[in-house]
Amino acid sequence: MFVYADNAATTSISKTALDAMMPYLTDYYGNPSSLYSFGQKAAEALQASRETVAKYLNASPKEIYFTSGGSEADNQAIVSAARLGARKGKKHIISTQFEHHAVLHTLSRLEKEGFEVTLLDPHSDGVIRLEDVEKALREDTCLVTIMFANNEIGTVQPITEIGALCRERKVPFHTDAVQAAGHMPIDVQAMNIDMLSLSGHKFHAPKGVGVLYARKGIVLTNIIEGGAQERGKRAGTENVAGIVALAAALKESCDHMEENTAKIIPMRDKLFRELAKIPHSKINGSLEHHVPGTVNMCFEGIEGESLLLMLDDQGICASSGSACTSGSLDPSHVLLSIGLPHEVAHGSLRLSIGEYNTMEQIDHIIEVVPKVVAYLRSISPVWDELEKGERPHLI
Amino acid sequence: MFVYADNAATTSISKTALDAMMPYLTDYYGNPSSLYSFGQKAAEALQASRETVAKYLNASPKEIYFTSGGSEADNQAIVSAARLGARKGKKHIISTQFEHHAVLHTLSRLEKEGFEVTLLDPHSDGVIRLEDVEKALREDTCLVTIMFANNEIGTVQPITEIGALCRERKVPFHTDAVQAAGHMPIDVQAMNIDMLSLSGHKFHAPKGVGVLYARKGIVLTNIIEGGAQERGKRAGTENVAGIVALAAALKESCDHMEENTAKIIPMRDKLFRELAKIPHSKINGSLEHHVPGTVNMCFEGIEGESLLLMLDDQGICASSGSACTSGSLDPSHVLLSIGLPHEVAHGSLRLSIGEYNTMEQIDHIIEVVPKVVAYLRSISPVWDELEKGERPHLI
Repeated sequence: MFVYADNAATTSISKTALDAMMPYLTDYYGNPSSLYSFGQKAAEALQASRETVAKYLNASPKEIYFTSGGSEADNQAIVSAARLGARKGKKHIISTQFEHHAVLHTLSRLEKEGFEVTLLDPHSDGVIRLEDVEKALREDTCLVTIMFANNEIGTVQPITEIGALCRERKVPFHTDAVQAAGHMPIDVQAMNIDMLSLSGHKFHAPKGVGVLYARKGIVLTNIIEGGAQERGKRAGTENVAGIVALAAALKESCDHMEENTAKIIPMRDKLFRELAKIPHSKINGSLEHHVPGTVNMCFEGIEGESLLLMLDDQGICASSGSACTSGSLDPSHVLLSIGLPHEVAHGSLRLSIGEYNTMEQIDHIIEVVPKVVAYLRSISPVWDELEKGERPHLI
Repeated sequence: MFVYADNAATTSISKTALDAMMPYLTDYYGNPSSLYSFGQKAAEALQASRETVAKYLNASPKEIYFTSGGSEADNQAIVSAARLGARKGKKHIISTQFEHHAVLHTLSRLEKEGFEVTLLDPHSDGVIRLEDVEKALREDTCLVTIMFANNEIGTVQPITEIGALCRERKVPFHTDAVQAAGHMPIDVQAMNIDMLSLSGHKFHAPKGVGVLYARKGIVLTNIIEGGAQERGKRAGTENVAGIVALAAALKESCDHMEENTAKIIPMRDKLFRELAKIPHSKINGSLEHHVPGTVNMCFEGIEGESLLLMLDDQGICASSGSACTSGSLDPSHVLLSIGLPHEVAHGSLRLSIGEYNTMEQIDHIIEVVPKVVAYLRSISPVWDELEKGERPHLI
């Protein structure tokens, strides 16, 4: 049985998104910046896509900028706020320890330029506390950037409350909503979000297209200079087919969010319930504040990489953390940020499921994972020491 | 008759490129950074694409970085050279007056940061002189960036000679080859090119994917920070389908370059020959140093925009300059750079044809354009003044 359980890394393209984009890969290939009617067909598709995305975020179409993905959107949001801040002598940024690297690395670069960055502790449950944001706010804070939902452990942050606080203090608030868009309701007005990033391929659109929402009045700094596309804020001929697919996929995901969630939650809960029966296992991140599909657990005494390879042999696609950092031997910065010791963080498993998964697939995972964990422990010298009491169990 | 004659703005996706990408839009949607075999299929496709692109540029696969397009590649090349230069106290850049805005606007931003930029004059024939480059080179020059072929008038620059000069002076040489790739032979070794940008959608790949070639030893500065994709130099989940299509399209274009050129040149030459019969018309740019498909002409006494709209009524897709600047009322900076007066530059027409065009389509253009020009002149007060001798003809 083939089980794709890595939807937080990327998703398959939905039939709706594919059908929407195909005409723009074949018949309507005109450049949307051109004057003739054939090009204007592409321009109209862009505009319709912009309106769709705006509608589902409760934004205005003029506040929607299409990018090459979530990382570019994160970079542009943060750099823009930093440049605006610097002009007013404000060079302090608040973020969290467990952001995606698109945020963290951009902040590191700004630190080298003289910005001061406060990274909030997500506590052991992976949820940022409003009072921590409040305490960190300063007169010279030019940006608060806190992810909507964490990409590894799936915890959801108190975005509305943080947004309200930032609005009150007149500090721009950006959220990396890559893991939330299409999976949870987003309302930039009600949530007081000034800037928001999302990525199409996390909700059944193709890879290579994303969105930056920036509230009217926020002057963006270009990451890519050149032509006057995207109201002069993002140069380069528009990825028309990708943008059309993104809008179609966002619409589909949002229109079916309730039924998708109703389907996903029981599968996720069964995974948590059954896999937690494995001795010396641990669920990572609050279950109370959680995206529908993400399950992150640690199993003591094993290496996550070996676990993934053996799951792969059984047809199960899973990850140990973010796909963007795979290949790295360091344990996940997210798991370390919620206080897991290195040894425990190394034995992590992320299963991220979606509406295309079935309960039969979940049962397959539940059958396979305990066996694989048991096998890996049987050949693990560390587990041997733990069992003999030569070292203490950490979970 | 529908005639798409704006291939310099964008091209249709070839069947080969579409067939190559489709499996990665449907079946093989895995994230190439993931560990399991399903994701590795995507990773293998990326690697194969990288090898193909490298082969057709005569580069090494490790020198190929996939980007979201030509503009991003231009930005990254220039910013990277600037950062490397600044570390050595070298802050002078040589470019040309008629580069694409992805180059010119990036240079403007660097000027604001304290870089000094020399923009060479392309002379009236649209060809940069080697001796002008030589004269402009200084001890503190950190980059020469000169386009391979101009996007509006199609003139080809002496890239090999400029490359040799830069190599001798140990100055990094970048070329924006967006209009050349897939249409003219490129050999980064033989041509002494250190960095090169190209864009897939100019040679029958989809929009939203490009390449930056950077010679081994050149340390790139990230434009987009985040995950470790593209050897840590370009973050963001890879646009796998787009990249596969780009490689397939580049291979196809290069493999059939000779026969395509043999088909295009007679069509182009017929356009030049017949349209030049229109009184007070002018061919822009050297015909000796020219990409195969681009025809740029001016017709005195008319507005380019009106010409395009009337051609559109006759099914002909053409442009007056770069699609990236359409909507602007200013005349083309390219045409001004080769010395055309504003009044003449306003009456420009770019027809860019490709191997999918037919001689019947060319005949349609040749039939329609003179009639439209005559009609527009018949209602033009400027033409009236010209005819009455109240103002002198400029061409």
